[in-house]
Amino acid sequence: MLWYNRTMGFSFTVTSRDPKTRARCGVISTPHGDIMTPAFVPVGTQASVKSLSPLELNTLGVQIFFVNTYHTYLRPGLAVIKKAGGLHGFMDWKKPLITDSGGFQVFSLARPKYTPADRGEDVPSLVTITEDGVEFRSHWDGSLHVFTAESSMQWQWELGSDIHIAFDDCTSYPATRSAAEKSMERTHRWLLRSIAAHVKLSKAYKSKSKPYQALYGVVQGSVYKELREKSAQYVAGLQTDGIAIGGVSVGESKKEMRSVLSWVLPHLPDNKPRHLLGVGEIDDIFALIESGMDTFDCVQPTRLARMGRLLVRKAGHNEIDITNKIWAMDMGPVEKNCSCYTCTHFTRAYIHHLFRVRELLAYRLATIHNIHFIHTLVSEIRDAIPKGKLVEMKKKWGYNR
Amino acid sequence: MLWYNRTMGFSFTVTSRDPKTRARCGVISTPHGDIMTPAFVPVGTQASVKSLSPLELNTLGVQIFFVNTYHTYLRPGLAVIKKAGGLHGFMDWKKPLITDSGGFQVFSLARPKYTPADRGEDVPSLVTITEDGVEFRSHWDGSLHVFTAESSMQWQWELGSDIHIAFDDCTSYPATRSAAEKSMERTHRWLLRSIAAHVKLSKAYKSKSKPYQALYGVVQGSVYKELREKSAQYVAGLQTDGIAIGGVSVGESKKEMRSVLSWVLPHLPDNKPRHLLGVGEIDDIFALIESGMDTFDCVQPTRLARMGRLLVRKAGHNEIDITNKIWAMDMGPVEKNCSCYTCTHFTRAYIHHLFRVRELLAYRLATIHNIHFIHTLVSEIRDAIPKGKLVEMKKKWGYNR
Repeated sequence: MLWYNRTMGFSFTVTSRDPKTRARCGVISTPHGDIMTPAFVPVGTQASVKSLSPLELNTLGVQIFFVNTYHTYLRPGLAVIKKAGGLHGFMDWKKPLITDSGGFQVFSLARPKYTPADRGEDVPSLVTITEDGVEFRSHWDGSLHVFTAESSMQWQWELGSDIHIAFDDCTSYPATRSAAEKSMERTHRWLLRSIAAHVKLSKAYKSKSKPYQALYGVVQGSVYKELREKSAQYVAGLQTDGIAIGGVSVGESKKEMRSVLSWVLPHLPDNKPRHLLGVGEIDDIFALIESGMDTFDCVQPTRLARMGRLLVRKAGHNEIDITNKIWAMDMGPVEKNCSCYTCTHFTRAYIHHLFRVRELLAYRLATIHNIHFIHTLVSEIRDAIPKGKLVEMKKKWGYNR
Repeated sequence: MLWYNRTMGFSFTVTSRDPKTRARCGVISTPHGDIMTPAFVPVGTQASVKSLSPLELNTLGVQIFFVNTYHTYLRPGLAVIKKAGGLHGFMDWKKPLITDSGGFQVFSLARPKYTPADRGEDVPSLVTITEDGVEFRSHWDGSLHVFTAESSMQWQWELGSDIHIAFDDCTSYPATRSAAEKSMERTHRWLLRSIAAHVKLSKAYKSKSKPYQALYGVVQGSVYKELREKSAQYVAGLQTDGIAIGGVSVGESKKEMRSVLSWVLPHLPDNKPRHLLGVGEIDDIFALIESGMDTFDCVQPTRLARMGRLLVRKAGHNEIDITNKIWAMDMGPVEKNCSCYTCTHFTRAYIHHLFRVRELLAYRLATIHNIHFIHTLVSEIRDAIPKGKLVEMKKKWGYNR
């Protein structure tokens, strides 16, 4: 069975714009179907959106999700995914997929934030960065691996995702201006190599009737205006299918997200889709869409769910902790008027109970609600933009910042 | 919304019989619907069949499931379930339910199998059995509770299950003849009290238009023929809606199941449904149905699933361990020709991966398959009995014992 459209490549069309902000609606077309933007992209780190089946993802209206190359490269390994015909076949997911380069996890997982070295101890680093790429030890079994621009492109082709992210040097936070500049420049050099590898692979795979797989370049530059502008201009000038913004999800830089986006976005071409890597908490969504972002992935809604923190429409405090005793006798749904499976079938009291006794169903019901919640919000935003009502809607939601 | 039929009471009709064994098909009618027998009864210990939603239970053809009074009494407690209108409303389950008396868990959980006392240490027991009932400390928080025939009946009425089990003294294994006899006699005295309490409650609740809730008496007697026969005759002579057989699931007594059933069943009235408590491993199913049992509950298929042990049609060895490396690259379904969601959508390789990285979806896909497997088996048995083909079918399955 063919799970993709042979003749369809990758394209992006802006369909409407908000008159008061940079927000826009559009359609990203891929061989596995269309993505209506703006779109929230849930994360399926290890080739599964935690607790949910593909059937549920479809019911929830998930258009695309994110899989981590680093995780799937280590476990189960690429051989089995290749044998399954790529991630789509492996996971039984027929719609679009996006993968990252693996770089972010190499930097964040293989290099723990607080190492014994921070305490002045002399231990060997798990990561060695050279101009060629990154050598690291698996956080699972300590085995040695090398990621380069070329191997990252190769692996993403084998995973078969619809959108690939170029291999970048994910700038750590905080970074001095000089360190941020070096990291950005390396990111640019690696982008050139990523593009060259991608072009080569595209030719090689065309003969095998593999669907076209798109490549997004990554903008870095930490929290420095000049660097972000330079990086945006550089990436904008190259031949990629879309542009991703990196280095915003780590540490304090997220607080500076609005500034970073205001520096970068004016330099990006209007006709390419833009993805914000690792950002998408409820608080961020209006700001990033108003800045002109089209898609954004984030583990927060699904991670919160597994902790029993359920999203609700209440300005300034968008969640309830369902594990709190105050819900033990509450016969209402998590959220009134919510049309998700969880809210239309179960009470707060029941979900509270499931969490207290650690029943597996708890995590699923919570995840269903949180994804439904964020999808409903983004879908309302997609409706508001063509009507010029985004700012009004934002006020209704209580986001006046 | 009324989740039950006001006018419908409880009834049982035998619809066909196997000419060569005691096996029979029938229909148990309850206010929450019918149960076609023989029927496997999955267990939802803590008010949830682990990892599954009510929607999935329906899709799997689950007709009734078992909830433990002891667990729900302790957590979340009866007050919240009462407020939710009973277990049906609390769990969003519209079909029949069966609850136990709580006795079994009091005896097995509150009284650990190997206590420090077994090692000659002087520690206070968690359980005190008197003629009145059982005083015990919660295995969760050590709080003190008393279960009696009257309170067990009261609580099961509040839980609102369709079938209640009388409060019995669950005979431990091994038991001397004398201990088994004492335990059996206490079970009989408690049964009289259970019936009296049940009759009283039925009257009290009739005025509130609560649906009729049935009561099953329990046969005990350990592995002693004379005691089992005596107990069967005694329970058969009393006014209950059905009869349950207890004390077979513990320890070595399960090996003697066939003997126990051959002693008990001839003494049970033909017109009452019979439930076997806590037995229903794949190996047992033909034997217990051939003995004339109508329903049987067992945690094994769902518990095995969560360990990655998946049921397959292979005589003598009915399961595969999906966590074994041999499945890592296997692109086939768990079982060929299986029509469950798991087998029609996912490969052994993918499920293997989910188990290895402990993704929550693993437990669900495995549970779906195992329940589907056992339901398919029992459903085939229900088809074979009226055609007189049970023995033939059993041979095909490789069960010639």
